[in-house]
Amino acid sequence: MGIIVKKFGGSSVGSVPQIQAIAKKLAQEYHQGDQLVLVVSAMARTTDSLFGLAHEITSHPSRREMDMLLTAGERISMSLLSLALLEEGIPSISFTGSQSGIITDDHHGNAKILKVNAFRIHEELNKAKIVIVAGFQGVSTAKEITTLGRGGSDTSAVALACYLQAQHCEIYTDVAGVYSADPRIVRNARLLPEISFMDMLALAYNGSKVLHPRAVEFASKYKVPVEVKSSFTFAPGTMIKNEESPKDKTMETIQVTAIAHKENILRYLIPLDEKAHTLLNKWQNEVFKITVQGEALELYIEDKYESEIDYLLTESGYDELSKDHNWGFVILIGLGLAADPAFMARVLKLTQTIDIKRISHGERSLELILPTQQVAKTLVLLHQEFFGE
Amino acid sequence: MGIIVKKFGGSSVGSVPQIQAIAKKLAQEYHQGDQLVLVVSAMARTTDSLFGLAHEITSHPSRREMDMLLTAGERISMSLLSLALLEEGIPSISFTGSQSGIITDDHHGNAKILKVNAFRIHEELNKAKIVIVAGFQGVSTAKEITTLGRGGSDTSAVALACYLQAQHCEIYTDVAGVYSADPRIVRNARLLPEISFMDMLALAYNGSKVLHPRAVEFASKYKVPVEVKSSFTFAPGTMIKNEESPKDKTMETIQVTAIAHKENILRYLIPLDEKAHTLLNKWQNEVFKITVQGEALELYIEDKYESEIDYLLTESGYDELSKDHNWGFVILIGLGLAADPAFMARVLKLTQTIDIKRISHGERSLELILPTQQVAKTLVLLHQEFFGE
Repeated sequence: MGIIVKKFGGSSVGSVPQIQAIAKKLAQEYHQGDQLVLVVSAMARTTDSLFGLAHEITSHPSRREMDMLLTAGERISMSLLSLALLEEGIPSISFTGSQSGIITDDHHGNAKILKVNAFRIHEELNKAKIVIVAGFQGVSTAKEITTLGRGGSDTSAVALACYLQAQHCEIYTDVAGVYSADPRIVRNARLLPEISFMDMLALAYNGSKVLHPRAVEFASKYKVPVEVKSSFTFAPGTMIKNEESPKDKTMETIQVTAIAHKENILRYLIPLDEKAHTLLNKWQNEVFKITVQGEALELYIEDKYESEIDYLLTESGYDELSKDHNWGFVILIGLGLAADPAFMARVLKLTQTIDIKRISHGERSLELILPTQQVAKTLVLLHQEFFGE
Repeated sequence: MGIIVKKFGGSSVGSVPQIQAIAKKLAQEYHQGDQLVLVVSAMARTTDSLFGLAHEITSHPSRREMDMLLTAGERISMSLLSLALLEEGIPSISFTGSQSGIITDDHHGNAKILKVNAFRIHEELNKAKIVIVAGFQGVSTAKEITTLGRGGSDTSAVALACYLQAQHCEIYTDVAGVYSADPRIVRNARLLPEISFMDMLALAYNGSKVLHPRAVEFASKYKVPVEVKSSFTFAPGTMIKNEESPKDKTMETIQVTAIAHKENILRYLIPLDEKAHTLLNKWQNEVFKITVQGEALELYIEDKYESEIDYLLTESGYDELSKDHNWGFVILIGLGLAADPAFMARVLKLTQTIDIKRISHGERSLELILPTQQVAKTLVLLHQEFFGE
C-alpha cells in the first residue's frame, strides 16, 4: 500500500453537503489501507468574494496582505473536510501550506515552489491519519505566507505527490476527465481514457482548463501519473502518464489527440522599449501568449485580468495603448502535425469561411487565432473532421 | 543479448578507408554477441551528384525515376560495407529497403513509412549474420521504389529498431553527440550526455541537424532509446530517452536545455487562396516553418530548396511573389520558458542590439526570427547567459 494524493477543487468542496459526501467516499477508501493525502482548494466563490472585499477597501491592495487574506479560504475548506472525516470516525488532521512544508520563493500572488519539507505529513500518515493540506499556498524562506497563483492547488497536489513519492495523484474536479474537445461546445466530444504527458502539456498551455500547465510540467518532469476524475462519481477518468507504445503500430500517421480553445482573450499591443521590460517583470500573473512582432509586444491575456493589467499599465506610465477585446484561439494538439504542408492545406480548406488572423505551430500544436465569436463554430468543424461522429 | 540497430550517415561511409575502419570496429562488436542491424546512407556527395546528373538531363525530372536513381546510392554503400565485413571474416548480407520490408505510401521523394515486414532480417540475424539495410528507401504497396526524403536514413533506422524491438538504436555521425548549441559557432558549447525525447523533438523541429525530426517522432512515439555518437571514435555520445526525474529536485526553475538555430532561410509570402492550398498539397519536401498572417501564407524554407520551390510556384501559376533571402532563427529549448513574462523580459534585454523580427513560443521553445547575419552573435550571447562559461 502506498501514498495517494487526492486534490479537490473549489467546486468539489463548494458546500457542506458536498464536503460530507466526499468524506463518506474517502472513509471507504481509507479502510482499503492506502495512505491518503488530500489537497483542497477554497470553497467555490470564497476566493473571489475575499478578493471583492479587499477591493472594496482599496483598488491596489498590498500583495502580502492579499496572500494573508486569500489563504484563509483553504483554511476553511480543509478544516471543514477534516471535521467531516472525524465525524465519519476517520482520524484526520489539516495543515496549512506552511505547516506542510511547501517552501516557495517570495513572489506574493504567484510564488514558485522551491522544495517541500514533508516530515510533518509523514509523521501524521504514520499515525494512520488522513492528512489534509491547504492547496494554493506555501511559505517563503523569509517565513511569509505566499500563494501560488490561480490554479495553484493542482501544482500543490502534484508537487506533494512527487515529494512524497506517491503512487499517483488524483485530481477530482467537476468534469469527468480530459475530452477531445470541450463537451459544452462539442456535443460528441470524447472522454480520453489516457493521454501522454506531452500532449497534456500542450493542451494545458493552449487553454484546457482541466489541469494547470504548471501542474502538468511538474507531473511530466517528475513522472508522477495524474488521474483527472469526477468528484461527484469518483468514476475512472483520464490518466495522464508516459505514452504507451501504440499497439497498432501504424507508423507515421498524423493524429490529432485533442483540440483546445480559448475565448474572450484580450490583446494589448505595447511598444517594445525599456518600459515594456519593466512591465513584463512586474506582471506576476498568467499570460496566455506573448509574442513580439516587429516593434510591438503582443500580450494575449484572459479578460479576467483586465482591470489588474490596466492598473499596472497606468502605473508603468502607459496612457494610450492599443487594446482589443474578443480574440479567440483554437489549437489542434498532436504529434507530427507541425510544419506539415498538407496538414496546413487541410486546415485552411476547412476554415475557409472563418476569419483567421494568424496560424502558427508549436512542437505538437497548430494554433489558429480568430475572433472569439467564431471559436465555437471552428471547434465543432475541426472536431467533426478529426474525430468524426 | 539483443538486437542493436546502428546507422551510419553519408559522411561516415564517405570513402573506402572509412568503410574499412567501421567494418573493423563492427567486427569487434560482432564477437560480443549482440545481433547487429546496420542502416547506411549513400556515401557523402553521391546523392547530390546523382541529383546533378539528372538535372543535366531535365529541369523537372519524374519523381518516380528520381527515386529509382537516388536509391542506387545506398546500394553502393551497403554492398561495400558488406564486402568489408566479409573481408574481416564476419558473415553479412545487405538488403534494399524493399527487401528489408520497409513498406511506405506512394509519395515519391517524401514517402511515409506504413509498416515494416522484417521477417527476412530476422531470418538472417538468426543465421548469425550482420544485416545491412539501405536507409532512406522503401517500397510502396504498389511495389514501386520510394524514398523517405532527406534525413530519411535516420527514420529508417529508428523505424527498424522499433519493429525489431531492438534494445536501442545508435546513430553514428560526424559529431560527438547533441550539444547545448552548435559548437562550430559557440566554442564552449557542451556535449549533453543525455536529453529527453521531448527536448530532442523540440530541438529537431527547430533546426538541429543532428537527428531528423521524423526520426525523433518515431523514437519518442515508440520509446526507442537512441544514442547519437561519433563514427570516428565510437565514444559514448548523447542518449535520447525518457526523461529521468531530476536528482536535485529543484522544483520550478526554468531551464534552457539547448539552443537551436537556423541560417539562410528563404521566406515566401503567398496570398491565401485556392492556389495556395494546391501548392501546399504539392510541396512534398520539408518546410522549416509555415505561418499564416492575415491574408498571407508565410513559408520559411531552407535555401537549398529554392530552385525546386520556384519551379513549383511557376507551375502553380504564381509569377510575382514576395521572396526574401537571409532570414534566420535562434530557438531556446526547455520546459517552462514558454509564456513566462519575466523570461521574455530577460531575452528582450539580452537582445536589445539585435534586429528581432518576431518572437513567439511553442510548448517548450521560444523562437526568435532575425536576420541570418545576426544568428551567430545572438547564439553566442544567449549561450553565454544560459550556460555560462
